[in-house]
Amino acid sequence: MHTILLTGFEPFGGEQSNPSWLAVQQLDGYQLDDEVQIVSRQLSCVFEKSQQELKTAIAELKPVLVLALGQAGGRTELCFEKVAINFIDARIADNAGQQPVGAPVVAEGPAAYFTTLPIKAMVNRLKQQGIPAAVSYTAGTYVCNTVFYAMMHQLKDKPKVRAGFLHIPYAPEQAIGKAVTSMPVDMVVRALKLCLPVALQSSEDLQIVAGTLD
Amino acid sequence: MHTILLTGFEPFGGEQSNPSWLAVQQLDGYQLDDEVQIVSRQLSCVFEKSQQELKTAIAELKPVLVLALGQAGGRTELCFEKVAINFIDARIADNAGQQPVGAPVVAEGPAAYFTTLPIKAMVNRLKQQGIPAAVSYTAGTYVCNTVFYAMMHQLKDKPKVRAGFLHIPYAPEQAIGKAVTSMPVDMVVRALKLCLPVALQSSEDLQIVAGTLD
Amino acid sequence: MHTILLTGFEPFGGEQSNPSWLAVQQLDGYQLDDEVQIVSRQLSCVFEKSQQELKTAIAELKPVLVLALGQAGGRTELCFEKVAINFIDARIADNAGQQPVGAPVVAEGPAAYFTTLPIKAMVNRLKQQGIPAAVSYTAGTYVCNTVFYAMMHQLKDKPKVRAGFLHIPYAPEQAIGKAVTSMPVDMVVRALKLCLPVALQSSEDLQIVAGTLD
Amino acid sequence: MHTILLTGFEPFGGEQSNPSWLAVQQLDGYQLDDEVQIVSRQLSCVFEKSQQELKTAIAELKPVLVLALGQAGGRTELCFEKVAINFIDARIADNAGQQPVGAPVVAEGPAAYFTTLPIKAMVNRLKQQGIPAAVSYTAGTYVCNTVFYAMMHQLKDKPKVRAGFLHIPYAPEQAIGKAVTSMPVDMVVRALKLCLPVALQSSEDLQIVAGTLD
Repeated sequence: MHTILLTGFEPFGGEQSNPSWLAVQQLDGYQLDDEVQIVSRQLSCVFEKSQQELKTAIAELKPVLVLALGQAGGRTELCFEKVAINFIDARIADNAGQQPVGAPVVAEGPAAYFTTLPIKAMVNRLKQQGIPAAVSYTAGTYVCNTVFYAMMHQLKDKPKVRAGFLHIPYAPEQAIGKAVTSMPVDMVVRALKLCLPVALQSSEDLQIVAGTLD
Repeated sequence: MHTILLTGFEPFGGEQSNPSWLAVQQLDGYQLDDEVQIVSRQLSCVFEKSQQELKTAIAELKPVLVLALGQAGGRTELCFEKVAINFIDARIADNAGQQPVGAPVVAEGPAAYFTTLPIKAMVNRLKQQGIPAAVSYTAGTYVCNTVFYAMMHQLKDKPKVRAGFLHIPYAPEQAIGKAVTSMPVDMVVRALKLCLPVALQSSEDLQIVAGTLD
Repeated sequence: MHTILLTGFEPFGGEQSNPSWLAVQQLDGYQLDDEVQIVSRQLSCVFEKSQQELKTAIAELKPVLVLALGQAGGRTELCFEKVAINFIDARIADNAGQQPVGAPVVAEGPAAYFTTLPIKAMVNRLKQQGIPAAVSYTAGTYVCNTVFYAMMHQLKDKPKVRAGFLHIPYAPEQAIGKAVTSMPVDMVVRALKLCLPVALQSSEDLQIVAGTLD
Repeated sequence: MHTILLTGFEPFGGEQSNPSWLAVQQLDGYQLDDEVQIVSRQLSCVFEKSQQELKTAIAELKPVLVLALGQAGGRTELCFEKVAINFIDARIADNAGQQPVGAPVVAEGPAAYFTTLPIKAMVNRLKQQGIPAAVSYTAGTYVCNTVFYAMMHQLKDKPKVRAGFLHIPYAPEQAIGKAVTSMPVDMVVRALKLCLPVALQSSEDLQIVAGTLD
């Protein structure tokens, strides 16, 4: 039996819940097929601790694929991140009160890592099934990007373990009064069931356009 | 048995479906309680014809309440319209190829009518249940506003029949590649079941803030 | 000599300045041609007082044309308002601490008034000169709409006095850190010089499209 | 005499002009002080050719500082780019009809380079002077990012030459009918005069927050 590790974050920024955890929590123990099972873990919204939690989970579970999820309030689609950058700039303090500014995730690490998931193929699959999705070229400079970068750095010598990051919109109840997009958690769960098999099939991505002009 | 009339539009503007009809269609024949039943009708996206269709349906069904729904691509919430204006300005032709510009809905009619639904109370109910909703102060200048104005004009001497208009976001499958908000049709259906009983209870609206600065 | 009355508001909502006043202030005393002079007045951002100030200015100056300006943070264009509604719903208190909710501007007044300015022609002139402008179908429910409605109500029996309302974006210094559009005050001043002669020429508007779908 | 090289692009995507060139063109030959002069060059909006043009200009002029500018329609602020990524994904063909998809800028190059300009300090200077500006964490995947990456790759062993990329909003005449932000070209020129001295002073950046959550 192979393992897919999904992670979601605890709430932050004054929110009561975090849709990334609400979604992946529903898939803990879910069998994608006879050979692949999902394990879900919650990460703290804390710069140092979240990296350690993810590192421990990967060491323990030896997953063939890791997809970390995070909430991105204001996004209108499921956003599969292309690039993790070696840069932290916290606009608000994390849940432990730390607010690093202008710091690297890994001292002396490279400027960036690309995801090793076939994200265009995953996006394509979701769009075919009526679920708004896109490739994103920035994961921000907060805990999400930090966890993404730390994960790719940890796995840099293990090319067989595919890994990436998915930003998801607010859940509807979070969007009340904010006049921003939301997506029901059930739709995120359905999306994960649809795109994870695509991610397992191949690391080769589709040669279709998913770029932005600026 | 009392009747609530719900209307939705046929597709327009190159879309394959219209979520306003997909939603109300599911509620045709639905009994809200022992005394109130919903009847759903589709309206053409044609300036003259849609007004006639609605007029005929109201004359035939003698509803106690009418809520017309329309698609508003780009909106992030369920938008209950406050005001219908006596003005048509079609940015695109309707489904019969007509494109009136700078014309009144009703010659010599008043500049505007306000909805007679307790829309703040309806919005409030939805927000309490985790569904993004708001009061809107413009229904545009296309077929939606035209139907809304014609309906309020028809009912102006029948104060017991409450009436209004609800703009809804794109369905998710319509939002693909547009980078705009969407809302699943099932959530719209759930919202209607929650807010229609509020609309039946009283025409007195809540004294809570729902304004915009500009 | 004929008079055009321009009004702008004092700052509100925690802002240090109001671009509507910064713009019209520059045009106080400006002669549009041999026969027409501009007089500019500042209005308080207070529901009752602003109406009284405008009423007094109109009675005193007997203008042939009145254009009231207001700040609309977040708008991307100069927005000429089509319709003033008889409805107040203050999201924040005005500068005198009053916050009316769900109230009419004029008890027993009609639901709405349309502007009597040829706003499509004015918008058209600005776009030809490279200045972003559009017709808007909601002036909100705060002091701006209230002043607009009260003005049209005061002038309803004086069809020779054309009147309307123009919402303008933030000035650049207000937009700092808000990630919203701004427009330099000098561009607003230039726009007024370009579109006021159009407004004087005729009350007949152009038959061009300026509508919105929803 | 030291040289600052500014570049702007030719028009693309059906536009008649490109504000990046309109702005830097005005500064060609401008002396920032007794020791520093600006030289401005136009780049083609063509993937290969633009890189070659920039390489030639740098070799010829031996600038102490290079700032490449590009148009970013829809942005609301002057956006100083933090990171250039080794990835091309052209949503539209370039001006030579080429549309590379999923390709590296430099085969075997690192995933990304960071700018060597003190961009927080530059942004800070502009905000203090009332000009909307921000740090951006994605330069897209089109010609702008490609030129930015190629430039940083060329200069990677010349740490004394500071270099970076600035995305600017549409000019007002481009924004007509698009309902998006614009910024007058004169304001961009004024911004460059204000922030280039800051860039010359030090490569050490300020330790102030300029991050994004996602």
